[in-house]
Amino acid sequence: MNTNMKHIGVFTSGGDSPGMNAALFAIAKTAEVNSIKLSGFRKGYEGLIDGDLVELDTQELQKLVHRGGTFLKTARSARFLTKEGRQQALENLRKNNIDALIAVGGDGTFKGLLAFSEICELPFIGIPGTIDNDMAGTDFTLGFDSAVNTAIENIDKIRDTAESHNRIFLIEVMGRDCGYIAMHSGLGVGADAILVPESGQDFVRLLEKASVYDSEEAFIAVVAEGDELGAEIAASKIKELNPKLDLRITKLGHVQRGGNPSAADRMLGIRLGAASVKALLQEKKSVMVGILNNELSLTPFDQVVKQHQVQDELYELVKIFGK
Amino acid sequence: MNTNMKHIGVFTSGGDSPGMNAALFAIAKTAEVNSIKLSGFRKGYEGLIDGDLVELDTQELQKLVHRGGTFLKTARSARFLTKEGRQQALENLRKNNIDALIAVGGDGTFKGLLAFSEICELPFIGIPGTIDNDMAGTDFTLGFDSAVNTAIENIDKIRDTAESHNRIFLIEVMGRDCGYIAMHSGLGVGADAILVPESGQDFVRLLEKASVYDSEEAFIAVVAEGDELGAEIAASKIKELNPKLDLRITKLGHVQRGGNPSAADRMLGIRLGAASVKALLQEKKSVMVGILNNELSLTPFDQVVKQHQVQDELYELVKIFGK
Amino acid sequence: MNTNMKHIGVFTSGGDSPGMNAALFAIAKTAEVNSIKLSGFRKGYEGLIDGDLVELDTQELQKLVHRGGTFLKTARSARFLTKEGRQQALENLRKNNIDALIAVGGDGTFKGLLAFSEICELPFIGIPGTIDNDMAGTDFTLGFDSAVNTAIENIDKIRDTAESHNRIFLIEVMGRDCGYIAMHSGLGVGADAILVPESGQDFVRLLEKASVYDSEEAFIAVVAEGDELGAEIAASKIKELNPKLDLRITKLGHVQRGGNPSAADRMLGIRLGAASVKALLQEKKSVMVGILNNELSLTPFDQVVKQHQVQDELYELVKIFGK
Amino acid sequence: MNTNMKHIGVFTSGGDSPGMNAALFAIAKTAEVNSIKLSGFRKGYEGLIDGDLVELDTQELQKLVHRGGTFLKTARSARFLTKEGRQQALENLRKNNIDALIAVGGDGTFKGLLAFSEICELPFIGIPGTIDNDMAGTDFTLGFDSAVNTAIENIDKIRDTAESHNRIFLIEVMGRDCGYIAMHSGLGVGADAILVPESGQDFVRLLEKASVYDSEEAFIAVVAEGDELGAEIAASKIKELNPKLDLRITKLGHVQRGGNPSAADRMLGIRLGAASVKALLQEKKSVMVGILNNELSLTPFDQVVKQHQVQDELYELVKIFGK
Repeated sequence: MNTNMKHIGVFTSGGDSPGMNAALFAIAKTAEVNSIKLSGFRKGYEGLIDGDLVELDTQELQKLVHRGGTFLKTARSARFLTKEGRQQALENLRKNNIDALIAVGGDGTFKGLLAFSEICELPFIGIPGTIDNDMAGTDFTLGFDSAVNTAIENIDKIRDTAESHNRIFLIEVMGRDCGYIAMHSGLGVGADAILVPESGQDFVRLLEKASVYDSEEAFIAVVAEGDELGAEIAASKIKELNPKLDLRITKLGHVQRGGNPSAADRMLGIRLGAASVKALLQEKKSVMVGILNNELSLTPFDQVVKQHQVQDELYELVKIFGK
Repeated sequence: MNTNMKHIGVFTSGGDSPGMNAALFAIAKTAEVNSIKLSGFRKGYEGLIDGDLVELDTQELQKLVHRGGTFLKTARSARFLTKEGRQQALENLRKNNIDALIAVGGDGTFKGLLAFSEICELPFIGIPGTIDNDMAGTDFTLGFDSAVNTAIENIDKIRDTAESHNRIFLIEVMGRDCGYIAMHSGLGVGADAILVPESGQDFVRLLEKASVYDSEEAFIAVVAEGDELGAEIAASKIKELNPKLDLRITKLGHVQRGGNPSAADRMLGIRLGAASVKALLQEKKSVMVGILNNELSLTPFDQVVKQHQVQDELYELVKIFGK
Repeated sequence: MNTNMKHIGVFTSGGDSPGMNAALFAIAKTAEVNSIKLSGFRKGYEGLIDGDLVELDTQELQKLVHRGGTFLKTARSARFLTKEGRQQALENLRKNNIDALIAVGGDGTFKGLLAFSEICELPFIGIPGTIDNDMAGTDFTLGFDSAVNTAIENIDKIRDTAESHNRIFLIEVMGRDCGYIAMHSGLGVGADAILVPESGQDFVRLLEKASVYDSEEAFIAVVAEGDELGAEIAASKIKELNPKLDLRITKLGHVQRGGNPSAADRMLGIRLGAASVKALLQEKKSVMVGILNNELSLTPFDQVVKQHQVQDELYELVKIFGK
Repeated sequence: MNTNMKHIGVFTSGGDSPGMNAALFAIAKTAEVNSIKLSGFRKGYEGLIDGDLVELDTQELQKLVHRGGTFLKTARSARFLTKEGRQQALENLRKNNIDALIAVGGDGTFKGLLAFSEICELPFIGIPGTIDNDMAGTDFTLGFDSAVNTAIENIDKIRDTAESHNRIFLIEVMGRDCGYIAMHSGLGVGADAILVPESGQDFVRLLEKASVYDSEEAFIAVVAEGDELGAEIAASKIKELNPKLDLRITKLGHVQRGGNPSAADRMLGIRLGAASVKALLQEKKSVMVGILNNELSLTPFDQVVKQHQVQDELYELVKIFGK
């Protein structure tokens, strides 16, 4: 137990995701119980560089557990990629007597911490916060469950109008490099087709299935975004096969990033937030806390790669149900 | 009181809108109470032409009051624009001993009924069903309140991520010819700017306001869709003034058409559904039932024009709050 | 136009209702546009007595348009019923150079202002904020539409389980003296029975209808709360007629008071908030702003009685659909 | 691989829970892919006894994936507890050439199958469907995540009004024998206190904490229902310590059982539904499919006891955050 831990700094970085405020509350509460002061840097690494920090109040954060976004704001920081930026951040940590840092963000955030550890000896702990669920070291990332819930609620609405008109809808969801949102939301809405970056073959099958579509039922395809994927590309390929089809496209877009966090993301934020402080007390450093097989786990930053192999069972379901 | 009314036909036509099922239930219940048989034609005018009708069961419809879409399905019909199509519809009405028709739809639907009345002497009653709220003869159309609620719930989610990043968002909502959805949802989410087809001047003001945007706060603009409007056109004009701005665009799209109807739309559907049967019993014909000044009203089909003058008070609010 | 208006005070009083924050934003924005300073008293009349006031920031309030509750908090005040309390409030208004007061609350709030006007000559404007919709002078009170939406969303959920088991549910909603919430939510969920304080006769009919219930379908009754009404009293009377029935009771309770305001309540809050400042500029005093027949209206405080006569058309619907 | 499997029967039993329809769809789709006929017995064991079965259509069920309740209805059956009832069920299975049975329900349902297996040699597979999450053999039961989401959404609403008035609320959630819903929802809403059946000690702490409550903030306690627990008992004990406190009680009740299933419950239903058919094809019998450590698992019926030991980590969090 590290009893020299007097003052922890925390920040949120990269894309925001629902549940970040729950994590901040849990960090604050656990710090408070252990008599540790907690300060938050605003706007991710930008706040570290600019010394933009605020003391965090547990009671205020308790009222934000159920809110989306991040109280501390977030940003991408080009300056932290430079030596000067990181040097400036180091000086701010020293000036404010920070003993350790907790960062909530994606794999880019943790890469930043790895680079930072070359000049800064403080212990760093990471919490996986991204809606994409595309990180090794945890079964679920903070925000994923909320994003899927937002997606399915909106696609359910589209089903109403699709069935009223027997229309074909191509619905694009987020997940540029990883089809988790598309898979979970596609299965969850009873989609007729699910297109994910993990497979080119499904693409062909969707095209065939949609192009012979007979208009006596609605047809709902859930498509992951992507440079070589996405609803518009899928639509143009279907049109090549059957130019007469009357397709509708909806891109759910940034609504998937916001909204009150789901129950599971609140719980995940609280579990990981509490675990991050405990990891510091146990003298851990440069690790990400996560949930593996329903248990807390620690993964060194250098093993937190972005790609996340899709579970075979899940992909099998997509092949059966989504085509 | 028309006591010869034995069998009413009903159909939904044009774009579907939340609350149509509530209207169908109310028609069925009111018909039942008055010992009138009720049949539904499926897929709008297509069902009239094809004789695709089903007897409606009050108890089944009661379980659908809270559901979006339309149980009877809907469609646009090119065939009904032809003399042959209308003749065929007439024969189906005769064959099935239909004494009167109730149609739920937009101004195009009622124009169809006007044309039909040249060869068919049956009484027709219309119920205004469209999310656009763009019809004279009623203060609110069926589905409008639900569409605005769906829009604001999604824009609220976008606010979470916009505030986390201090980002500019241009959010496109439906309402091609009429800015009601944009005005209500823009005011309802506390938008920084609201762009509606009714005004070109606001356009300039938005551009100026957004182009001097200083990135210390989120900036949310709600933009009505349209050939000369829409989020993409607005974005490109802002970019001309300030190419450095990092804009995000979200088009809410067809989610605005679906979902369980709001409380107000359920009530509106029930009020108008009941009123449509009563109008037939009172020997009305070729009128649309609506709500004007919180009271039931009847408007002859030929006065149901599409354009709906925007309330001055509302437009004044948009000018004060949305810029 | 009153150009001497330099500083307005505002407070929320009585039960909170969704939309109060939207009204506060609109008051702030309209005051700002007219170069008027705005201060808010916290906790209703308690804040007036204690001089607990804060300067209101338009930009902060803009981020709360979509939030339930009231930023200024609210309370019931026994002290304001005393002469000493009102005298203390008067001194605080003078000390802070307040030129006018806007109060958001129910009829009790406006009665308080009437009493206060005996010693205070400042102009007072009221905004009707209560979920009960039980005030003369406005067709809708702030919060009513949100409360009904919350009620129907929850009753829709109960329908799922009721239909799965073919069970009888008695669901109690708010509205002690006025059956509006029960009527709107009962009609909106397709209830089998609706019990409101306005009618004893329905009570008998519900009892008969429920007591011959045959268990081949779900049966959903929506019951207004009340000393001689409420779900438990209804249940015990049904049990007298048919002791074997397996009844379930759910009282929705305070969830009806909270939650993000509906689209209609946000718009209503914004319309009434803006109108309240304009009324002051037009030198009105001791009036409540409201919406009558879809237009802004002003009603003197002494005419704002609590009882609101139920529309005949609506009650007729309850008799047809809710039994 | 059992290639003699030609006709599977399925039913839902015990309390309904969100996700049951998703499970039915997955069973139907997986059966269809394997050329197996699927019939559904209505109203749980009652349908087996009465021979009340319907052939299930995959396409119809696909449209119900997102709906709460159970398409097949459910019931508790006293008759199946008798030898005669089970004998009658056996005859119906033979008469309809059923080769295997899948049951979705709680531990009582599986106990019924165990008893039935004494006279019936067909293979039985169970799917854990109950909102209480109180079954060994699976980390999550079908419906739990939806119930917690419904609970937190409603408690969030109560927070709005609680904070507006600085009030104390005791909110009762379901989970008579198991505090999972109370723990997850209590942590998820940032409750000030969480009372679960697993601990009497917390009870004392809540009482103390609440009784010294100073009214300068809202105070929200989430309390599990129960004969010796529940919001009313907690309230009366607090009142003993501090009779002046103004407490509010809300029992969320049956709303927790209904509503569209959450994303996680849809996925769980689909995973378990598909797995149940596969288990039959692999000649498994008398096992429950579940998810343990994020992987599919099989647990023999006689090991599916009701009590589920609460995770230490979770209970630790409740002790830190909920008091």
